[in-house]
Amino acid sequence: MPYSSPSLTKLIEALRKLPGIGPKSAERIAFYILKSPPQESEALVSAIMEARWNVKACSICFFLADTDPCPICQDKARDQETICVVEDSRDVIAMERAGAYKGLYHVLGGALSPLDGIGPGDLRISELFERVRQGKIKEVILATNPTMTGDITAAHLAQQLKVMGVKVTRIAHGLPVGTELELADEVTLNLALQGRREM
Amino acid sequence: MPYSSPSLTKLIEALRKLPGIGPKSAERIAFYILKSPPQESEALVSAIMEARWNVKACSICFFLADTDPCPICQDKARDQETICVVEDSRDVIAMERAGAYKGLYHVLGGALSPLDGIGPGDLRISELFERVRQGKIKEVILATNPTMTGDITAAHLAQQLKVMGVKVTRIAHGLPVGTELELADEVTLNLALQGRREM
Repeated sequence: MPYSSPSLTKLIEALRKLPGIGPKSAERIAFYILKSPPQESEALVSAIMEARWNVKACSICFFLADTDPCPICQDKARDQETICVVEDSRDVIAMERAGAYKGLYHVLGGALSPLDGIGPGDLRISELFERVRQGKIKEVILATNPTMTGDITAAHLAQQLKVMGVKVTRIAHGLPVGTELELADEVTLNLALQGRREM
Repeated sequence: MPYSSPSLTKLIEALRKLPGIGPKSAERIAFYILKSPPQESEALVSAIMEARWNVKACSICFFLADTDPCPICQDKARDQETICVVEDSRDVIAMERAGAYKGLYHVLGGALSPLDGIGPGDLRISELFERVRQGKIKEVILATNPTMTGDITAAHLAQQLKVMGVKVTRIAHGLPVGTELELADEVTLNLALQGRREM
């Protein structure tokens, strides 16, 4: 628009680059920032800078943390013989929030996707193999996403990990709890049937 | 969660204060900020600081702008005899985007809301009256929101402005373009009927 302030336009454009923020939300957030008390926008600015400054990928598992190794790799109370392989640091947080897993992690940094030109060299795959080769790991749980690229990645890893003599498992596919059977898609329903367990 | 990095937690909390950002979006944006190139988060930080620094309310119409008076008040090509009264700076942007109005504005900074303790003294009402008293204004268009508080504000302003001998109008209520009649609420439908025009 012709009359907008250049600084405001710049702020709205910067906000629009964030994921899930469309033009309307960016405008709403920009005006909120302009009208909120100065301490609040200063807190946001310093939080962004501090996070960029402090948070690094753990040199063992590549989970984003303030310390290296990350608190999970440092925690000797956790099962040191199991690695859960995930695509992203956010998946680690989701798993930790669920609270059922007490082993170690390995963050790949994505999934294999030949169409997007993402090959094994673009992910932390050799680092995973190196951890397994050290001999302490007994089981690798492949918890990549139940998507095409996640499944391809899991298949690729499974093939190579089995050769190293380690137990390889894939997290179960099935019906999410709290949903209705009639709403499930066919692929999920087939996988839920195949993965049925005796009661 | 027990293992999150303190800097990350702080960033997620700061992001959650923004309007329309829930816990999931805040987490997604925080990880995006951590993984984006440093220039991108630096651009966001400097855009926030610059906007806070440069953008001020215009001393005439209270629209947020980099200059004082704002570009709209400075533009002598605009109709200097009409003021459109809106609640918020974002309403000015919406009006400018629509492009149909070529007069001046007055941003009240909210609406009268006795329940929330917002009275005439909390809004830029006396400043509006002062502008009208200077004698150049011929029409005041009340474009406060079509909500209870917006209507109360419009009624309050209309009463006092009429005494000053200025023409006072209210923007039309009716069916939004592109919607279906059967989906309109009863109040809107009644107002649309009352406001019907000869074709």
